[in-house]
Amino acid sequence: MNFSKGTASQTLSHVIDESKEEELFAAVCAHAKQTAVLASVESLLGWDERTKMPVMAGTYRAEQIAMQATLVHRQRTDQAHGERLAALAESKLAKVGSSQTRATIQLLQKDYEKQLRLPSRLVEAIAKACVEAQQAWAVAREESSWPMLQPWLEKVFALKREQAACQLPDRDPYDALMDDFEPGARWSVVAQRFERLRAQIVPLVRECVDSPQRPSDAVLKRNFPIAAQKQFVHDVAAGIGFDFKRGRIDTTDHPFCSTMGPDDCRITTRWDADFLPTALFGILHEAGHGLYEQGLSREWFGLPPGEAASLGIHESQSRLWENMVGRSPAFWEWCFPLAQRAFPKALANITAAEVQRALLAVQPSLIRVEADEVTYNLHVMLRFDLERAVVQGGLAVADLPAAWNERFAKDFGIQPQSDAEGVLQDIHWSGGLIGYFPTYTLGNIFAAQLMAEATRQLPDLDQQLASGRFSDLLGWLHQHVHSQGRLLESEPLVEQISGHPVSETWLVESLRRRYGPAHGLAAG
Amino acid sequence: MNFSKGTASQTLSHVIDESKEEELFAAVCAHAKQTAVLASVESLLGWDERTKMPVMAGTYRAEQIAMQATLVHRQRTDQAHGERLAALAESKLAKVGSSQTRATIQLLQKDYEKQLRLPSRLVEAIAKACVEAQQAWAVAREESSWPMLQPWLEKVFALKREQAACQLPDRDPYDALMDDFEPGARWSVVAQRFERLRAQIVPLVRECVDSPQRPSDAVLKRNFPIAAQKQFVHDVAAGIGFDFKRGRIDTTDHPFCSTMGPDDCRITTRWDADFLPTALFGILHEAGHGLYEQGLSREWFGLPPGEAASLGIHESQSRLWENMVGRSPAFWEWCFPLAQRAFPKALANITAAEVQRALLAVQPSLIRVEADEVTYNLHVMLRFDLERAVVQGGLAVADLPAAWNERFAKDFGIQPQSDAEGVLQDIHWSGGLIGYFPTYTLGNIFAAQLMAEATRQLPDLDQQLASGRFSDLLGWLHQHVHSQGRLLESEPLVEQISGHPVSETWLVESLRRRYGPAHGLAAG
Repeated sequence: MNFSKGTASQTLSHVIDESKEEELFAAVCAHAKQTAVLASVESLLGWDERTKMPVMAGTYRAEQIAMQATLVHRQRTDQAHGERLAALAESKLAKVGSSQTRATIQLLQKDYEKQLRLPSRLVEAIAKACVEAQQAWAVAREESSWPMLQPWLEKVFALKREQAACQLPDRDPYDALMDDFEPGARWSVVAQRFERLRAQIVPLVRECVDSPQRPSDAVLKRNFPIAAQKQFVHDVAAGIGFDFKRGRIDTTDHPFCSTMGPDDCRITTRWDADFLPTALFGILHEAGHGLYEQGLSREWFGLPPGEAASLGIHESQSRLWENMVGRSPAFWEWCFPLAQRAFPKALANITAAEVQRALLAVQPSLIRVEADEVTYNLHVMLRFDLERAVVQGGLAVADLPAAWNERFAKDFGIQPQSDAEGVLQDIHWSGGLIGYFPTYTLGNIFAAQLMAEATRQLPDLDQQLASGRFSDLLGWLHQHVHSQGRLLESEPLVEQISGHPVSETWLVESLRRRYGPAHGLAAG
Repeated sequence: MNFSKGTASQTLSHVIDESKEEELFAAVCAHAKQTAVLASVESLLGWDERTKMPVMAGTYRAEQIAMQATLVHRQRTDQAHGERLAALAESKLAKVGSSQTRATIQLLQKDYEKQLRLPSRLVEAIAKACVEAQQAWAVAREESSWPMLQPWLEKVFALKREQAACQLPDRDPYDALMDDFEPGARWSVVAQRFERLRAQIVPLVRECVDSPQRPSDAVLKRNFPIAAQKQFVHDVAAGIGFDFKRGRIDTTDHPFCSTMGPDDCRITTRWDADFLPTALFGILHEAGHGLYEQGLSREWFGLPPGEAASLGIHESQSRLWENMVGRSPAFWEWCFPLAQRAFPKALANITAAEVQRALLAVQPSLIRVEADEVTYNLHVMLRFDLERAVVQGGLAVADLPAAWNERFAKDFGIQPQSDAEGVLQDIHWSGGLIGYFPTYTLGNIFAAQLMAEATRQLPDLDQQLASGRFSDLLGWLHQHVHSQGRLLESEPLVEQISGHPVSETWLVESLRRRYGPAHGLAAG
């Protein structure tokens, strides 16, 4: 009797512990989902600012965003949430729960601790400095005046170094900053990979430029009426699988993709009546981001299993659709008749092959956001090396313009005539986005490696794309990438999917294979 | 020495008190302005839901709005805010401050106490019941099934009665509910005025309908391409003074005007390619609301001196531009050439006078939102009498359909064939907007009384309107209405401006003067 009583009591206490753990887990999930609701409202404020807001409403919008950001930060650093997470970290659930449960506990705790180690004084100082630095940047770029921006960048870099030291004191400061965008990334690994990539892209660009058989993009520089472009890119986005019941397209100056809820992902583009690729590839890129967002788990929205793995993985999805699919002959077999219906005048007497070839023109140029697919990575790697040198102390902010121009000449064979076309062209540093640039080229590397594996597993993929059937590719990405959420960091995720460690090899191979023939280069 | 020391100390303590009062006042203002920021974000969520949101995003949007509403309610009932207001109420500032300061203290305290007397249990119960009742309403109207809605309306009316008893226990329950929309209004005064109005409108409608010389609206029922309508109504709104640097126009199902900041007022309309007035008068109406919002004090945004006086005054501004201006011969002298340029086919071989006369067709009909200016008030007064009888206990919810049909036959000479065209047509009751309907007709009464005074003070107003100069009228409204904010309740405000107590006389006179000749009725 005593014995059985004891057993019952032990069993009961065990049951209570387990149900208590489940309760704790439900509470931290509910808290994180509330944070997501607050953050999604901040996203709406940002989306509206960049697409719809009347011009004079900016000052008040800044107040609205600042207040919402404060609410989000307060929610994220809530002490009770932290205590529940600490208790859960020691729980059985953290050891034997499902992979989603374990990742949720571990990543929410990591996020919480990173937030908590950031003093709110520093959060405010960074927010304020970045708003002011971005305003200074807009004027400095307009007037091509580096001295106007330099003191602001010195301030921002100093604050970001402070942030790195607070948040991840044991890590190299640049690694600490990259962690916000590419969790777990190490500069030493990335730098070696980028050096190998650069060593192959610089000569490829030279070969393309020196070739007597360069494609011309003249056929894309005709009149494409904007109203027809709007319908056309909508149809293309819907064609590849972007769900307009759960999303929309709007007009903006600097295209982006923003998510305001599990069923609300909005993509944007700009329009050029005299150059079709501006809007079309803007939309293919952003729709690639959008397909990832729409493919994330709705059930886990706001929690790690329903979040993107990293910005690099995000970029791999946009680049895959924009470049690997969108510039392929197969895609243009499907897309060209749509385009001809939309632009009967501009595309009369032209073939799909001519358009597709025009999309492969390689031309070194000064501005990153206008670069072709091949030279693009050179722009990114230059920024990665320079910002890293500043963060790690090897380069003074004051020396950025000279370092920029020297490196640019080396990689591109041309040099900016003004800082506006050089070191002043991007908003990222003024906005505190330091450690962000490498994710663009990591995205290209991941995209090529994933596409190689998708092509291997879907042997008739080209025929499918040519007939407008994108569902197998999208389904493959959904199964292997989207549905994985943030359970793995980017490198283990790509390795798990492709069966190979991450390498630039696939990107180099893909660029040579696709751009070489278009420029009459010899194979291999 | 002692004496003079004592004086110095007394003076100092007086100075400290005054500076302490100013500090308290600054704190309550800052708090109210923060509330306004939170509430403006809620407005953006609502605007976006009704104009841009993807169809499947509704469930999450409800969560976003509910969370933002909770934040607003928490902020509004903040105890420290209440204590500061209580201290200020006893202060010298509340007695000898500027009229703005005194109104701010008094009205913020009134708002705070009304909010505080509402238990959060009841706030939640009403919010939940109204969401569910509105969903039930949508189905019930679709299927024209009163029994589907009745239990929900019973619940909503019961909860609203409870709200009235909590918030203003000393007032008649219907007066308490009206106070949310028309502060200080009394049903007994409104009912007497409405009865006098009804006694004159019912025979006017009969005369119009029986006249052998009725205007036809056939010229407005042609093809007006939507793209041209969009440009046209934009130009008309800009023409009367709506500032597009501080606002915009979007498409929606049920037109509204919404403000998201001191420089961000957005109006909406719907489009009918075969009937021009739908969009045009939608925009004239909403732009009238918008001009009021854009005319409120930017400096006092979020505080009573920068808030609208009441919904009735708001409606007076929309109705004044929509009806008193927008249906006048002078306005069409200016507007018709614009319209002809926008719709050259539809308006070929037609004159301004023909269009303007077509806009004055009186025709009793079943649906309020499609009613002409004269019969519109009969729709409103019917709802006022019925909802008041339910709130005051003289009518059971179950008896609403029969009461509706009986009264409708009496006032309009026709009867709905189904409840969908009758008692089920409006969303207001399901949405908890009880005590709201009378503000529509109060707005018409205020508009006529204000327009009579404006016409007296601006003797060449007709010539101005005919030449597209709206700035004098707008300036007059700004000076007398917009810039007054919420300092006076609606009736004292209209009396102060016009020099006469509020009366339906001016509305009756205006309708007879404008609609009589168009229907060939004898003068007087």
